Amino acid sequence: AIVAAALAAVAEPVATVRDLAGLEVVVSAGGTREPLDPVRFLGNRSSGKQGVALARAAADRGAHVTLVAAHLEVETEGLTVVRVETASELALAVESAAEVADVVVMAAAVADYRPATVSEAKIKKDDNGDALTLHLVKNPDILQGLAALGREGLTVVGFAAETAPSRDELLELGRRKARRKGADLLVVNSVGWAAGFGTDDNAVILLDSSGTIVGEAEGSKRQVADVVLDHVIALRS
Amino acid sequence: AIVAAALAAVAEPVATVRDLAGLEVVVSAGGTREPLDPVRFLGNRSSGKQGVALARAAADRGAHVTLVAAHLEVETEGLTVVRVETASELALAVESAAEVADVVVMAAAVADYRPATVSEAKIKKDDNGDALTLHLVKNPDILQGLAALGREGLTVVGFAAETAPSRDELLELGRRKARRKGADLLVVNSVGWAAGFGTDDNAVILLDSSGTIVGEAEGSKRQVADVVLDHVIALRS
Repeated sequence: AIVAAALAAVAEPVATVRDLAGLEVVVSAGGTREPLDPVRFLGNRSSGKQGVALARAAADRGAHVTLVAAHLEVETEGLTVVRVETASELALAVESAAEVADVVVMAAAVADYRPATVSEAKIKKDDNGDALTLHLVKNPDILQGLAALGREGLTVVGFAAETAPSRDELLELGRRKARRKGADLLVVNSVGWAAGFGTDDNAVILLDSSGTIVGEAEGSKRQVADVVLDHVIALRS
Repeated sequence: AIVAAALAAVAEPVATVRDLAGLEVVVSAGGTREPLDPVRFLGNRSSGKQGVALARAAADRGAHVTLVAAHLEVETEGLTVVRVETASELALAVESAAEVADVVVMAAAVADYRPATVSEAKIKKDDNGDALTLHLVKNPDILQGLAALGREGLTVVGFAAETAPSRDELLELGRRKARRKGADLLVVNSVGWAAGFGTDDNAVILLDSSGTIVGEAEGSKRQVADVVLDHVIALRS
């Protein structure tokens, strides 16, 4: 019923309401890349489609939007874009933009780990044996940091892409993450070898910071974006 | 002088000669991705532009071309494409296509190493500490394997993207690789944090299997492609 209501609400022509007018919205999108050397990197399969759909939806609904873009496989014409590569660069860009923001949506897939050292020259196979050990260190948790600011008037939205064999297990992973991160809204979706990346559609569950389900959405990434923004407005009113 | 002659030769309107007619050409292009889990992968910054330019040039010059494409950031309309993801998949596809090929051009950036184990579920940060150790194993050397076939009538072209502070050091790395790989032609270019990836131009040195310079080319990736194909024809005649 929640899904049906949400889809009905966005089946209307897009962007007839400018209900985000006057708001400063920061959206991060895409996948960070953590270099090992000038050639190789640790990446992830995020296409940036959901994040860019969120940025477009917010702009269409009247917000002033800054898109902090890691690696994208989608166009960003018409959007104000800050380009970043690594999780550290994304953290700096988002934290800087967040200082004057009303809403921050962390839709980017940020690397949890980066190589402990970055080689200035290409790592040569000849210099190594049949095996290579890569030492990784944890990146700062940007979403948790933003939520921990607890700044009055700032609404923080996070995303959690999880692999889970069932809806119950997906929800359990999402609930734990919601409580740990402390974001006002956590958008949980299921990903897998063949699901969730580069597609035009998405299906998500929305949790509050206590892990309670506050909504669901299924449809195009634009439709999902509009439902997420509906919930942001509800949270702020 | 070699560069000047080469550029003059390709300054003519493209594809006026069908000097590769009747030849079966296999070109690999793009960067392989080696998954750690359903979300993360080890990748490289190859855009596939040089490889796709080679495939197009060969097709324009009359060859029957199969493009074995790892991750690309460029369009492939009009080309016959076999899509692959990992180095192992690329090896299978190239080796299969090579069985009936006259020319194989290995322009893809193939991962030297892959994770020793691939996790079926997303690796969770909570299950690990502040550090993570990644164990990598060596991938088979596709170029060396093709050259080692020594099949009569098969011309094998390899690429070597090297980081080197000077032309001399680039050449030294290229020479060592030429001798080790045994390809009929090795196309050596310099890459770095800001050079060689995603750009429209390229500058290369061509070495034979003994490491001797047989040519150079500088210009658009299409121009470089045509010079490489000129050398392939010279090698086969």
